[in-house]
Amino acid sequence: MHWCKSEKNEHASRLVRLLSATTTMASQYTTRLIGAPNTLEHRVFIEQNGNVVSPFHDIPLFADQNNGILNMVVEVPRWTNAKMEISKEESFNPIKQDIKKGRLRYVRNCFPHHGYIWNYGAFPRPGKTLPRLTRRPKPMVTTTRSTSVKVLGIMALLDEGETDWKVLVIDVRDPLASRLNDIEDVERHFPGLVRATNEWFRIYKIPDGKPENHGESPAKTPNYDISIRNISVQNSPGYVSKNDPAYTSLPPDSRKAPAPVDPSISKWFYISSAQSSELHCPRL
Amino acid sequence: MHWCKSEKNEHASRLVRLLSATTTMASQYTTRLIGAPNTLEHRVFIEQNGNVVSPFHDIPLFADQNNGILNMVVEVPRWTNAKMEISKEESFNPIKQDIKKGRLRYVRNCFPHHGYIWNYGAFPRPGKTLPRLTRRPKPMVTTTRSTSVKVLGIMALLDEGETDWKVLVIDVRDPLASRLNDIEDVERHFPGLVRATNEWFRIYKIPDGKPENHGESPAKTPNYDISIRNISVQNSPGYVSKNDPAYTSLPPDSRKAPAPVDPSISKWFYISSAQSSELHCPRL
Repeated sequence: MHWCKSEKNEHASRLVRLLSATTTMASQYTTRLIGAPNTLEHRVFIEQNGNVVSPFHDIPLFADQNNGILNMVVEVPRWTNAKMEISKEESFNPIKQDIKKGRLRYVRNCFPHHGYIWNYGAFPRPGKTLPRLTRRPKPMVTTTRSTSVKVLGIMALLDEGETDWKVLVIDVRDPLASRLNDIEDVERHFPGLVRATNEWFRIYKIPDGKPENHGESPAKTPNYDISIRNISVQNSPGYVSKNDPAYTSLPPDSRKAPAPVDPSISKWFYISSAQSSELHCPRL
Repeated sequence: MHWCKSEKNEHASRLVRLLSATTTMASQYTTRLIGAPNTLEHRVFIEQNGNVVSPFHDIPLFADQNNGILNMVVEVPRWTNAKMEISKEESFNPIKQDIKKGRLRYVRNCFPHHGYIWNYGAFPRPGKTLPRLTRRPKPMVTTTRSTSVKVLGIMALLDEGETDWKVLVIDVRDPLASRLNDIEDVERHFPGLVRATNEWFRIYKIPDGKPENHGESPAKTPNYDISIRNISVQNSPGYVSKNDPAYTSLPPDSRKAPAPVDPSISKWFYISSAQSSELHCPRL
């Protein structure tokens, strides 16, 4: 029930379509929802068997290492605008909405796109690989808050001077998954999606007054301070038991209906000549 | 509050963007919601000052006849899939989801589109024009269940052998409304939208196994049986007073959270070569 509600809100992508088979498949991961979406208080904790787990440290990177199947955490459901991210700093790394200059961040709609055009998220990072985890690229596209995926391709985005790797994946539960094994297969079965993805990343910050992004040159990779609390990696410095106050003090589910969003977030921005340097972006 | 909730769900279009000014503007029309969206029981009645009114007969066609401003009833909010329509047969013409072969109808997502790409609806039809009302074309694009619009253009769609006129309009509250007076202005301010609209109507039924639609030739116009009950047109055969059992028996608001939707509705269909006759539509 909990999981179904989550799926309903997440608008499964066609590249990772939610099909009947999906809804009947039990996932070992569910969500604990805190507060109302579109507020500073909102948090999405990942749970396993009713226990909060860290999506960075307690979910294994591989779902099936022999077959190259990875776990993925979905931060932003397709066709939504709120820039949801796994919190690097907060204990047990809940998903929360990014904030800039004290305001909740949203991705704007650049015609013809609506919000994020895939399910967008991150690979979990088991404790032992923590030293390198800032270089782990982010995958896009899946169906639920945690799912198993197959990697189809990678792209290097140069985003405001920082290299930002994006990994294109498909949910293994997608009926087309067995026919998709490389980036060419994406174009074959989803014609136009790779191009739309490139365009999306190139223009999505223009309505916020920023320049076009580019997808070619590598640049510096940012560093982060990351909360390493977990309940799985017993030898790690962040390990806590379930009796630890840091764990027992996690808030209970307190979900609320979404708060109203500023209506300007649902505007469509028309970015003319996105291929050229002459950008036109009515922002009235 | 009631109205705000409605607006939040309706994803204002960029062609008819919801801006701050919009949310502070009181509308004389609100909604009475019955049951859960995505069920056979769901109805959206239009209310005026707390009284149910018929969107066909009790809302005037003109909001400001001297300035060519018309009222519009929004049946389908932008970026949603449920095929919501003003009921022609039911008393006081509530908005309900269309049914085909016993199943609720949804418009499928044809890449890169998400659901309906404008707010989609109908002009109200005052009682005295009833004899001609089946020829009154449907407008697209607005922000709330009832709003005032300016006409920018018209297109004739040939939809399964029936002529289906579509009127492109802009909400008068849009800050660009004063600059939009003709179809060329749409292309100037919303580059690509007219083309996307043409494409959308051409391909939107292909995932349901139907052929491409065409937008050129006029054909026959369908006839309907229409409930003419109203509380405004005193000389009309459908007029009833508010004490009439037909009126007092209308159900009270009983809104519920949306029911789950079959996950296949959120699939993206990739219609290749939509311009040519070679259509490719993976439907797995």
